[in-house]
Amino acid sequence: MPTIQAYGAQSETSAIEPLSIDRRAPRPDDVAIRIDYCGICHTDIHFARNDWGRTVYPVVPGHEIVGTVTAVGGEVTGFKPGDRVGVGCLVDSCRECSACEEGLEQYCDAGFTATYNGEDRHDGSVTFGGYSEAIVVSERFVLRMPEKLDAAASAPLLCAGITTYSPLKHFGVGPGDRVAVVGMGGLGHMGVKFARALGAEVTLFTRSESKREEAFRQGAHKVVISTDDDQMDSVANTFDYILDTVPVAHDLNPYVNALKRDGTLILVGLLETVEPPLDAGAVVFRRKQVAGSLIGGLPETQEMLDFCAEHDIVCDIEMLDIGNINEAYERMLRSDVRYRFVIDMDTLRAGANA
Amino acid sequence: MPTIQAYGAQSETSAIEPLSIDRRAPRPDDVAIRIDYCGICHTDIHFARNDWGRTVYPVVPGHEIVGTVTAVGGEVTGFKPGDRVGVGCLVDSCRECSACEEGLEQYCDAGFTATYNGEDRHDGSVTFGGYSEAIVVSERFVLRMPEKLDAAASAPLLCAGITTYSPLKHFGVGPGDRVAVVGMGGLGHMGVKFARALGAEVTLFTRSESKREEAFRQGAHKVVISTDDDQMDSVANTFDYILDTVPVAHDLNPYVNALKRDGTLILVGLLETVEPPLDAGAVVFRRKQVAGSLIGGLPETQEMLDFCAEHDIVCDIEMLDIGNINEAYERMLRSDVRYRFVIDMDTLRAGANA
Repeated sequence: MPTIQAYGAQSETSAIEPLSIDRRAPRPDDVAIRIDYCGICHTDIHFARNDWGRTVYPVVPGHEIVGTVTAVGGEVTGFKPGDRVGVGCLVDSCRECSACEEGLEQYCDAGFTATYNGEDRHDGSVTFGGYSEAIVVSERFVLRMPEKLDAAASAPLLCAGITTYSPLKHFGVGPGDRVAVVGMGGLGHMGVKFARALGAEVTLFTRSESKREEAFRQGAHKVVISTDDDQMDSVANTFDYILDTVPVAHDLNPYVNALKRDGTLILVGLLETVEPPLDAGAVVFRRKQVAGSLIGGLPETQEMLDFCAEHDIVCDIEMLDIGNINEAYERMLRSDVRYRFVIDMDTLRAGANA
Repeated sequence: MPTIQAYGAQSETSAIEPLSIDRRAPRPDDVAIRIDYCGICHTDIHFARNDWGRTVYPVVPGHEIVGTVTAVGGEVTGFKPGDRVGVGCLVDSCRECSACEEGLEQYCDAGFTATYNGEDRHDGSVTFGGYSEAIVVSERFVLRMPEKLDAAASAPLLCAGITTYSPLKHFGVGPGDRVAVVGMGGLGHMGVKFARALGAEVTLFTRSESKREEAFRQGAHKVVISTDDDQMDSVANTFDYILDTVPVAHDLNPYVNALKRDGTLILVGLLETVEPPLDAGAVVFRRKQVAGSLIGGLPETQEMLDFCAEHDIVCDIEMLDIGNINEAYERMLRSDVRYRFVIDMDTLRAGANA
């Protein structure tokens, strides 16, 4: 496949702008995909701006990709041209370690290859993500997108969706469980939908009274304003699981306090140090647990997509012209999106052809 | 039962000294016990000195009690005079909540009644512990001590033993698991013994090279010096479970790092805030867990005692004349005991009769 049009950042101070990138010709196990939609994850902003100090420029963000197969390599058996497919946060892994053997490629002992800003395991090139006309991905890392689901609205399932679905399934959430979700952004609103669909009694913790009606609309049974001490006291020792989607430093102790004995606080957003510090006594005295979970493996991502088809679950999205990408980033930083921007990639092709 | 002799603290500045206390006459469900041996737990020092600000004086510490039944109430069916019995950290609980119904009285929703410095649920009196000639305890909270085990050396099983056995069982430690124990004091040396007896491959983390041979003697397969960065690096992503028995603030991150994917760090000693702060990213990126566990319930404590009889497990103890209790406290504060002091309560009776 030749040089194609994409959008990316050239440096940590530059805006996201048009650029040309090379996509490899399909290897025998590869699927070539025309990208139709790409969701925007907060991680994209971190990488565009080198917030974590490990961006390789130019960077083409985007790991919530839905597209259409245009060609397949000779060894590909599961896909054919015309299929609607998805690509998430991973495009490769060692495929040999115990994690990979268990289909938990996100925990690959050798480190998975990220969809962008990763290093290709064959030729060492830097991977480019989904703000792009096309992508070429090894079959194992390509998902079947249920035709029943809206293509654009299912794009964020590939990151926001699986990141919340995986821990709920792994830790065994089911009917009768009391589950709370902390925060209602891209991840949080999916956590509410999934927990509800899994049969749990669902509470949303939010700082904002304005999210109350919205939370009920997403499927929450109850809303607790986390800044209200009385409301927090009223739910002490209540939850079997709390899914904490907040990506910035915050006090975990009120949520530990809200867990039942043997309850689990599951971190999926926080990657920093836990400050203010965790109270170990609260963990010990009721045998509570603080756990983490990272996206999901390929088999579980497919399972999640099929679950979404069965339960009519997609993300709530706002469609975006790629020309407005920089404005979208600014709005995301103000939490001014309900709940995910998705780029209509035809707007890139139209621009490229203009 | 009349006024009897005990040892306790009268104020937070006084040493432990002789005093007289009242023991109730047996209620219908009570077992009256002559105390033969009582282990000394670090918690005893905290209460004697009011380190936690909630000591009610006079306080009679001691919750690792082995004795002989002298009388039973009319409703007691499981014990008769002459039986060797034990009493641990709990002497009562609400008996109605889900925790009590599950035999997890240590997690009683209403709070368990501690063996000392607790509040009796019937008459509101303050409970007195095991540094004493005798104790009267409701049958449900009395353990059968296997005659096969040395009576004195089995006393610390009632706290140090069950505190380490319970989480290893709860979290499912078994053959093939890689288990590490952090610290080798009263709790740690029991953790090593139990993990070994449960079939795990056992590593001891210790700061002290001097504990190496001792660890092997206790059953450890491997010793890692936790202050040696190279040794710590060599065990990254290695353990299914790490049982952390250290009761003072310490860095948990090196132990989180030493866990495998899906591994669990189990805190049984730390009751303070976690400082330096926990790195949430390390928990998320390998789906690790930080959990706590508190002593154990009555059924599990009995199970543990029977397990000890089957596997010939007791604590390593140093016998103590109660007249030397204050010196023993000072030695404990210097970690100068392998690994538990046990008071020979005949030395109290001899003193009382002198």
